[in-house]
Amino acid sequence: MPSTVSTRTMANAIRALAMDAVQKANSGHPGMPMGMAEVAVALWSRHLRHNPADPRWPARDRFVLSNGHGSMLQYALLHLSGYDLAMQELINFRQLHSKTPGHPEVAVTPGVETTTGPLGQGFANAVGMALAEKMLAAEFNRPGFSVVDHHTYVFVGDGCLMEGISHEAASLAGVWQLDKLIAIYDDNGISIDGKVEHWFADDTARRFESYGWAVIGPVDGHDVEAMDGAIAAAKATGKPALVVARTVIGQGSPNRAGSEKAHGEALGEAEIAATRAAIGWEHPPFVIPANVYAAWDARASGAARQAQWQQLFGQYAERYPHEAGEFERRMRGDLPARWGDAVLDALVAAADKEETVATRKASQLALDALAPCLPELVGGSADLTGSNLTKWKGAAPLRPDDIAGRHINFGVREFGMAAIVNGIALHGGFIPFGATFLTFADYARNALRMAALMRQRAIFVFTHDSIGLGEDGPTHQSVEHAASLRLIPNMDVWRPADTCETLVAWASAIERRNGPSSLLFSRQAVRFIEREEIDADAIARGAYVISEAAGGLKQASAVIIATGSEVPLAMDAQAALLAAGIAVRVVSMPATTVFDRQDVSYKASVLPEGLPRVAIEAGVTDGWWKYVRGTGAVIGVDRFGESAPAGVLFREFGFTIDNVVAVVNQVIRGKA
Amino acid sequence: MPSTVSTRTMANAIRALAMDAVQKANSGHPGMPMGMAEVAVALWSRHLRHNPADPRWPARDRFVLSNGHGSMLQYALLHLSGYDLAMQELINFRQLHSKTPGHPEVAVTPGVETTTGPLGQGFANAVGMALAEKMLAAEFNRPGFSVVDHHTYVFVGDGCLMEGISHEAASLAGVWQLDKLIAIYDDNGISIDGKVEHWFADDTARRFESYGWAVIGPVDGHDVEAMDGAIAAAKATGKPALVVARTVIGQGSPNRAGSEKAHGEALGEAEIAATRAAIGWEHPPFVIPANVYAAWDARASGAARQAQWQQLFGQYAERYPHEAGEFERRMRGDLPARWGDAVLDALVAAADKEETVATRKASQLALDALAPCLPELVGGSADLTGSNLTKWKGAAPLRPDDIAGRHINFGVREFGMAAIVNGIALHGGFIPFGATFLTFADYARNALRMAALMRQRAIFVFTHDSIGLGEDGPTHQSVEHAASLRLIPNMDVWRPADTCETLVAWASAIERRNGPSSLLFSRQAVRFIEREEIDADAIARGAYVISEAAGGLKQASAVIIATGSEVPLAMDAQAALLAAGIAVRVVSMPATTVFDRQDVSYKASVLPEGLPRVAIEAGVTDGWWKYVRGTGAVIGVDRFGESAPAGVLFREFGFTIDNVVAVVNQVIRGKA
Repeated sequence: MPSTVSTRTMANAIRALAMDAVQKANSGHPGMPMGMAEVAVALWSRHLRHNPADPRWPARDRFVLSNGHGSMLQYALLHLSGYDLAMQELINFRQLHSKTPGHPEVAVTPGVETTTGPLGQGFANAVGMALAEKMLAAEFNRPGFSVVDHHTYVFVGDGCLMEGISHEAASLAGVWQLDKLIAIYDDNGISIDGKVEHWFADDTARRFESYGWAVIGPVDGHDVEAMDGAIAAAKATGKPALVVARTVIGQGSPNRAGSEKAHGEALGEAEIAATRAAIGWEHPPFVIPANVYAAWDARASGAARQAQWQQLFGQYAERYPHEAGEFERRMRGDLPARWGDAVLDALVAAADKEETVATRKASQLALDALAPCLPELVGGSADLTGSNLTKWKGAAPLRPDDIAGRHINFGVREFGMAAIVNGIALHGGFIPFGATFLTFADYARNALRMAALMRQRAIFVFTHDSIGLGEDGPTHQSVEHAASLRLIPNMDVWRPADTCETLVAWASAIERRNGPSSLLFSRQAVRFIEREEIDADAIARGAYVISEAAGGLKQASAVIIATGSEVPLAMDAQAALLAAGIAVRVVSMPATTVFDRQDVSYKASVLPEGLPRVAIEAGVTDGWWKYVRGTGAVIGVDRFGESAPAGVLFREFGFTIDNVVAVVNQVIRGKA
Repeated sequence: MPSTVSTRTMANAIRALAMDAVQKANSGHPGMPMGMAEVAVALWSRHLRHNPADPRWPARDRFVLSNGHGSMLQYALLHLSGYDLAMQELINFRQLHSKTPGHPEVAVTPGVETTTGPLGQGFANAVGMALAEKMLAAEFNRPGFSVVDHHTYVFVGDGCLMEGISHEAASLAGVWQLDKLIAIYDDNGISIDGKVEHWFADDTARRFESYGWAVIGPVDGHDVEAMDGAIAAAKATGKPALVVARTVIGQGSPNRAGSEKAHGEALGEAEIAATRAAIGWEHPPFVIPANVYAAWDARASGAARQAQWQQLFGQYAERYPHEAGEFERRMRGDLPARWGDAVLDALVAAADKEETVATRKASQLALDALAPCLPELVGGSADLTGSNLTKWKGAAPLRPDDIAGRHINFGVREFGMAAIVNGIALHGGFIPFGATFLTFADYARNALRMAALMRQRAIFVFTHDSIGLGEDGPTHQSVEHAASLRLIPNMDVWRPADTCETLVAWASAIERRNGPSSLLFSRQAVRFIEREEIDADAIARGAYVISEAAGGLKQASAVIIATGSEVPLAMDAQAALLAAGIAVRVVSMPATTVFDRQDVSYKASVLPEGLPRVAIEAGVTDGWWKYVRGTGAVIGVDRFGESAPAGVLFREFGFTIDNVVAVVNQVIRGKA
């Protein structure tokens, strides 16, 4: 009987679960869940549209806990409202292979929409989700059929708002007028170091108004009715809205409430007992009375809501069968039926044309060829559209008054862009990408990592991928970036050599459902590699023999491995060596990360044992020893670049036929 | 005769040099210098206190071009006002080894205070410089002797203000009340993709007011008198001030002004001719009339100002000889006389105590021991003070009303922190550091890169350096970060194993004048390594034999290399192997980057040829093949971590004596 349980008791159920689970694990963050408990009651029991039985229901509201250290808040809410998250999981909080890791992780816990913890990024993910909702609604809704119509709610703490990414994401939410995005700010005045006034004195309301947001509050965050009203008001503003909830961290704890001591450690048995007494919660740890469960239970209401939507969608499907089918395909993440043919056609055309272009241009050609059959493609650049070449034929710019546009001007906001791209991917319905210069992958780096950790189909385009960038100089020249991206587990990194490899890179990134891809492209033109056969399957394996040694493998004295713009140099060196009577194999390795996943026999067929290897890449050498091993050499760039025309730099840094020939000769002699 | 030359003509000299140099290079950005020319006239001829003959004069105003793509503005200003930057350098704009690289680079061009280009960072550097000025003034000024009293001016563009780091740095400048920081916003409404209104609709004035800044303007940026007045007004606000200068990008160019086409490419000969006509500049490229030079010449006024200051400083030195000597030492960057003894004493004490503590605790102990003799030490944490353990004994928190505090609460602002640390280092007088969890080095990454590119003594403390972080889970567990930091050229990366190695790491970072250091510390306790001798010099070489094979090198069957928290495991495995009759050498390699700089014979003495090697590090394995080569193995973590107690994770990921023994045996057999 929900009516017999007060909102205070509902909130205290969260408090008890949070403090007890943290105590049991002797690890975690009780302060935030205890402080946000009433806010959570207001949102989850009065507003959030969700169905615990189907956490993937497309029309659900999205809920993001950007201050993810308060994970026990989310686990308590999921458990109490009826998700498939048993009490035993809460008891196993933060233990190996539990469904309750230290911070919320998507795909680990049902109902968790995104992995959070690295502050500010959940907020930016939420901006991406709200944008995805707005784009999908504009594309699929029809008069009388608002099949896409849901809110995105995000809890943010002081930490999220101190982070620079909050500026980038909030600014874009304002530009895009994301009126279904509601952020609730846990304004408790405390961060880990203590009272925030000494390091965070912003007038946050004023700041968000400067972005074109509506600001509601400050509201007493421990007053469920007031929060309920504030959320209702936020929905009605027609703008992205920030609800400022004044809360007390660790509320309920007699001796730790309002102090940073409540933030990140267990309260201790004595203080937990005192808190139980203070809040009037008499139940033992991990015991929730049936009436409290009943008050929280969202299964019936959720099922009814989903059934209602399903009925609407059924009618929509009758009236608009094509749109309904497309919507379902898009939300499943399946590619269109003609995708395979489109890739094949594009490859044949590229192979025929043999164009010598910069691979960034090859990327644009790939987009031009593939986008027409891929309405789910959406992406753009962090204010380098004409340099990244991300705008494909027919792509209109996305604007609040033309939300059908699929090319996004992200502005100079690399980190925000990447986290928004992640949010779009998490929402579903789109294959998103973002672009900047490779060097500025640094700015976005933790969002790239999060894409990899979350195994999202998020695509990152990084052009101007080496000293080949030229005159802009060392600040803009990538040296360590290809190597460092390859270190991120589950991140695929492509550095293709020509139009055909670029097409395969794009196709592989789009077809990859369980992880992100970084596509690295040159600023400068790269010669099309003439070869007997364009074997797309071989390219798709990450490395392949692009040019066998004259006379076959048995005649080979060495293997040259190269990527991207250095593949033509490897080919030229091969020819020069042959003229001197030395046969070598050339391996193009556009994706080391993909090659690493191949079976042992394929790897051995490309890099046979016993032949010395020389790797060439215009970047740091460290990563290449993994492939070159004992008897080889690496030609690379182990210092920062310089400002000069690209051709001058490639000579200055030893990327010449003569140098490659000399190094290969040394390696062969060293072995002999 | 300055009076005979109008400010308009002075500005046009900049326009001409900028458009001609970009045209000659056929590369660069004419739009910003042409748009900011009058602003530059107002600042450089009316306000900037500098002496072209001595670009290192400590009391000079600092000038930062955060929108560094407009480098020709700065080069023109430096050339015209009399710095050692000949016209031939401007003619060689963006050519190899010129003093005029694509973006301004400190230590390449006299008068350039920081390397800019990666947007937003110059602004944050300026915040660091202004903080350094304020701290030095509070420390060294005496009644009647304002020996430290200068402004920091920074030009920022739309791009800088879109970047998240502008939020972080501006917020801190507000908190610290940096009243001598003046930012001039080139508000031209254009970024690379076009009119910014479509992706940057912030009310920037309102935003900066929310940080506690004064905002002056908008002012007509082409009206020198108005800008002069605005800068004067900004100085008088008693707050950090943002002057909003409304400008036209590419001003003067009849067909490109006000358009993104003016931004990033040469205007072309025809448009340059048209511009010359439009602005009334009749001189050939790279020719400046004598009267224009005279109007710009700041040598006499600069010399007079510096002489005046020198006189004041002379009197100060008479009255306060100790303070004057300290000030000069600090600005030279020399360490105190008793530094060497302090390090030695601390090492002896640590060796005696043999404490088993987390290396983050060892770091705090090192700070406790070294800080008392190092008044130039200033640093803190991005809201993880109690976790990073950055606060040393006796360090007070830096606050606007206690600017003598040397521990900084940076708030949750990793990128801003790192760029501010760079700015403090660039200013001089301090050895700054900043701290966060190692995983969040990602957030700061490009500032770490910039520290390395600029060869600054900036120190970055990264704790919780592996899966040893435990329950917080994969979002917070570093896996790829040690390896990826090592890829940044000129970045030293230390991952010490115990209290003694930690001390050497800190001492090395502090003594390193030509580059930054990243210090990686464990969350969990690490056993003190008992050994016959603590050889600080050996540790300082980056790798050394911490435990020779029983019976000496000739008896060794393999070498185990380990870092940080894995060194005790290597020692235990060594003992277990010996019990089975197998002798191995253990090498501790706290700093691969430092070891790489050692001579060939030292390297060979540590890692002798012919013995198989096994590397152990709780991180990605890729980088270790460089040291292990053909016949070895690497024990590491090539996937994301998990949320669980640290001990559980180390077992789960194979960091056990049994596994190390098994791998060493495999390697030995493989070789046999």
